[in-house]
Amino acid sequence: MRKLFMAEMEAVGDDLVEMATLVNRAMKQARVALEAHDVGLAETVIAQDARIDYLQNTLDERTIELLLLQNPVATDLRLLVAALRVSSSMERMGDLARHVAALVRLRYPGHVIPEPSRPEVAEMAELAVTVSEHLERLMTSYDLAEGREIVKINNDIDILHSQIMNYVTENVWSLTAPQAQDLTLLTMRLERFGDHAVSISRKIAYLVTGEWEPPVIA
Amino acid sequence: MRKLFMAEMEAVGDDLVEMATLVNRAMKQARVALEAHDVGLAETVIAQDARIDYLQNTLDERTIELLLLQNPVATDLRLLVAALRVSSSMERMGDLARHVAALVRLRYPGHVIPEPSRPEVAEMAELAVTVSEHLERLMTSYDLAEGREIVKINNDIDILHSQIMNYVTENVWSLTAPQAQDLTLLTMRLERFGDHAVSISRKIAYLVTGEWEPPVIA
Repeated sequence: MRKLFMAEMEAVGDDLVEMATLVNRAMKQARVALEAHDVGLAETVIAQDARIDYLQNTLDERTIELLLLQNPVATDLRLLVAALRVSSSMERMGDLARHVAALVRLRYPGHVIPEPSRPEVAEMAELAVTVSEHLERLMTSYDLAEGREIVKINNDIDILHSQIMNYVTENVWSLTAPQAQDLTLLTMRLERFGDHAVSISRKIAYLVTGEWEPPVIA
Repeated sequence: MRKLFMAEMEAVGDDLVEMATLVNRAMKQARVALEAHDVGLAETVIAQDARIDYLQNTLDERTIELLLLQNPVATDLRLLVAALRVSSSMERMGDLARHVAALVRLRYPGHVIPEPSRPEVAEMAELAVTVSEHLERLMTSYDLAEGREIVKINNDIDILHSQIMNYVTENVWSLTAPQAQDLTLLTMRLERFGDHAVSISRKIAYLVTGEWEPPVIA
């Protein structure tokens, strides 16, 4: 019985790794689609999101069954509850990458990123990709250094996001209303993407250390 | 033991009802703050959100302890897992109401809603308040008719949101870039608020009926 349980627990972990890998791929491709103005790639990101949603459902069912059929010990239980939370954040990260891609498709053949804001948006998108790379490594290694990197990079994302939003408010870039709309939608999604990764990092840190302490921001 | 367990389960339900009540109050007040341009009330909404966050933490701890210390039967277990999910959505709804209030405070003494878009935004905010009223009733009564209403109203919110976003894209209202930014931020939050309420309704419907079937849209 215990052996079966451990195998099932491992399957939950595998699902989380696969989700992280797919989220990373989605954000990488969404970034390229955005910058290269590639509507085909945007379509790919949109289509692939179904697999992330499917994995979340599978993981949820598996977790609930494990809780139900077995009598998990304390550590397993913490892992299962954390898995439910982490999968829900990853599903949302997949949605956010899909929303970025959907905006590329919606505006095609127009560009989503207003010309004067391109360097800042490119930087923000690059940071989002870096976050999702660390997330994939975190889910494979459970190395908390990855989580601390995520917190640090997310801090940079937040600063950049505030700066971009201030430029729009002060109309530094002389944008039109539709450009301001696109930039607001786009950067808000990248910003939320980072937040979810931080929230996952905190859950993993809690799991590994048993201490509910937010990772120190360097 | 079973008696203690039932009392604890009831406490989880009470926390969810209190969260729904606070979310409803927060959205009601955020709407008034937005329309009456009332920065004091906006501050109140922002300050009160800490209580919602606190309740989520309490409920999470309580739920995990129940899962850990007891050996819940199938129905209880479904309730506990649903409670974790529902509390997380409600915490997010509280955040969204707070973000609306924060935007009112940030722009003060300026107005957040661009003049020409006021009727549409007022309608959207009213629908968001109605959603949160149904949500409070749903959490008290577990009457699925409330959940069906939420799905229906959220549909109206989505339609209105698309319409507003299209008006911005086509610049029907001749907005400036900062106005477009505010309108995008604001309506996106109201739209997400409705989505979370739908997601809660689905979880409650699943709990009550045992059937994973999205409520029928009338």
